[in-house]
Amino acid sequence: MIEKLIEKIKKTNAPIVVGLDPMLSYIPEHIKEKAFAEYGETLSGAAEAVWQYNKGIVDAVYDLIPAVKPQIAMYEQFGLEGLAVFEKTVEYCKEKGLIVIGDVKRGDIGSTSEAYAVGHLGTVKVGEYSYRGFDEDFITVNPYLGSDGIKPFVKVCKEEDKGIFVLVKTSNPSSGEFQDRLVDGRALHELVGEKVVEWGADCMSPDGSYSNVGAVVGATYPEQGKILRKIMPKTFILVPGYGAQGGKGADLVHYFNEDGLGAIINSSRGIIAAYKQEQYASFGGEHFGDAARQAVLDMREDIAGALAGRQ
Amino acid sequence: MIEKLIEKIKKTNAPIVVGLDPMLSYIPEHIKEKAFAEYGETLSGAAEAVWQYNKGIVDAVYDLIPAVKPQIAMYEQFGLEGLAVFEKTVEYCKEKGLIVIGDVKRGDIGSTSEAYAVGHLGTVKVGEYSYRGFDEDFITVNPYLGSDGIKPFVKVCKEEDKGIFVLVKTSNPSSGEFQDRLVDGRALHELVGEKVVEWGADCMSPDGSYSNVGAVVGATYPEQGKILRKIMPKTFILVPGYGAQGGKGADLVHYFNEDGLGAIINSSRGIIAAYKQEQYASFGGEHFGDAARQAVLDMREDIAGALAGRQ
Repeated sequence: MIEKLIEKIKKTNAPIVVGLDPMLSYIPEHIKEKAFAEYGETLSGAAEAVWQYNKGIVDAVYDLIPAVKPQIAMYEQFGLEGLAVFEKTVEYCKEKGLIVIGDVKRGDIGSTSEAYAVGHLGTVKVGEYSYRGFDEDFITVNPYLGSDGIKPFVKVCKEEDKGIFVLVKTSNPSSGEFQDRLVDGRALHELVGEKVVEWGADCMSPDGSYSNVGAVVGATYPEQGKILRKIMPKTFILVPGYGAQGGKGADLVHYFNEDGLGAIINSSRGIIAAYKQEQYASFGGEHFGDAARQAVLDMREDIAGALAGRQ
Repeated sequence: MIEKLIEKIKKTNAPIVVGLDPMLSYIPEHIKEKAFAEYGETLSGAAEAVWQYNKGIVDAVYDLIPAVKPQIAMYEQFGLEGLAVFEKTVEYCKEKGLIVIGDVKRGDIGSTSEAYAVGHLGTVKVGEYSYRGFDEDFITVNPYLGSDGIKPFVKVCKEEDKGIFVLVKTSNPSSGEFQDRLVDGRALHELVGEKVVEWGADCMSPDGSYSNVGAVVGATYPEQGKILRKIMPKTFILVPGYGAQGGKGADLVHYFNEDGLGAIINSSRGIIAAYKQEQYASFGGEHFGDAARQAVLDMREDIAGALAGRQ
């Protein structure tokens, strides 16, 4: 699966993933009004608003980007009706030719991790038949439980040619509380990075350039990103924290390899709620999709400029 | 919420939680046959089988135990239809007077953790109205992202009088890969334990005896359990790994405080698939509920004996 992501990144010249994290407060009033008029101020109404909003964003940007990253928590908060829209969004994005990274941060052990892997990346058996649950291309996973927690995901990735991104160094202010603690003189996240390399060694793209087991390293920690890039030379890095969380293109050059690949930068709010920012306010809520498109174009230029500037 | 759990533990004299982790391979043939005859070998058929199995277990043991712990991965693997049964199971157990610990191991940052908290423990706002998504009493959460990831859950726990159990030292063989690494001469899980105390300090039961912020410490590491008990004197410990994973009552006495409280021991397979064990095989698959009931009685005796023996 990683080779498909790379192919799409090359084609779009955009190592960018748009985070579909549809908080109700981001959704333009006209969409909410229409959804609530039809379904009431109910979970169904919220789910419909989220769906129409997602569709508007995806329709506006799908030709510019390789991938989207729906954050499942933003759907799960609306219970089953929200999760139905998560499923519908995954399907719709795949129809549009996008790679879908489910930001689910799941993690457990043994048969339980396998159940998550099966539900999001593989097929579940019922008697003689097999079915797909949520069917993303990649998902994010949490490493705190160690190899027992990750290997069942890797197994399904190998069977299905899918991928995972393992949390290594997250973008949030308190990520250092545990992730930066020194173990034998080195930050814990570096040890996790080494394990990511180990877990992914047997799960490489056909040309051997990158693994289907990637890593999450926040844009807000460029120094650590530089070190982790070296520790994990064949690991694709999913980079959250660009834009709204403070990361800039210039901070991100060291997340990439010399081949110009190896990283994909996520922006959520900065794209999907662009119309709420001063810079894009002139588009107005009615044209939230156009604002998102312009924000993607600007982000692409920012990153391309930073990568060109390093040479 | 923790005081409600304590009250029920005292009433039942059973510091026991039954893990509702319904793998299809555990479900007796007669239940699967009936469900598949009605719905086919489909996700609906699997969901119906899971539901009938859960109902049979709960009906057989609800008067003996304070709580159940459904493992959401086992439902999520069947997609939306599985998650609908998760929701139905939570509701049914609450109707039966049981405390429900959703074993969801969620964890993210900021507004995303808050979305998970709202979806599982709180209410989500849609316009002027509020709705509950999955509505467990407690959930398990992952601490790898630090305080930013946990505090949004604690906030909702305070608002709603609900609780969480934070993963500290998990029961699996590889849990030591990161959790046992030494930081300033002490295991990482001890630092996580200290943070659990800090996160829960402002979220205590009315009498101040225990916090709504609990911890997960595996039965398979009794030495670490003993240390963590001392580090977290007012933290309730959820203990997985009893029975099928190898933990015995005698190993668990140090997870309890002098008051005989402070820990609740989970058994999943050992109870719900008791009928498949040699010890309970005479019940047969038709009487899987009776086998589960006997397994709960035996577990209660094992733990009570161990606790009596320590005095």
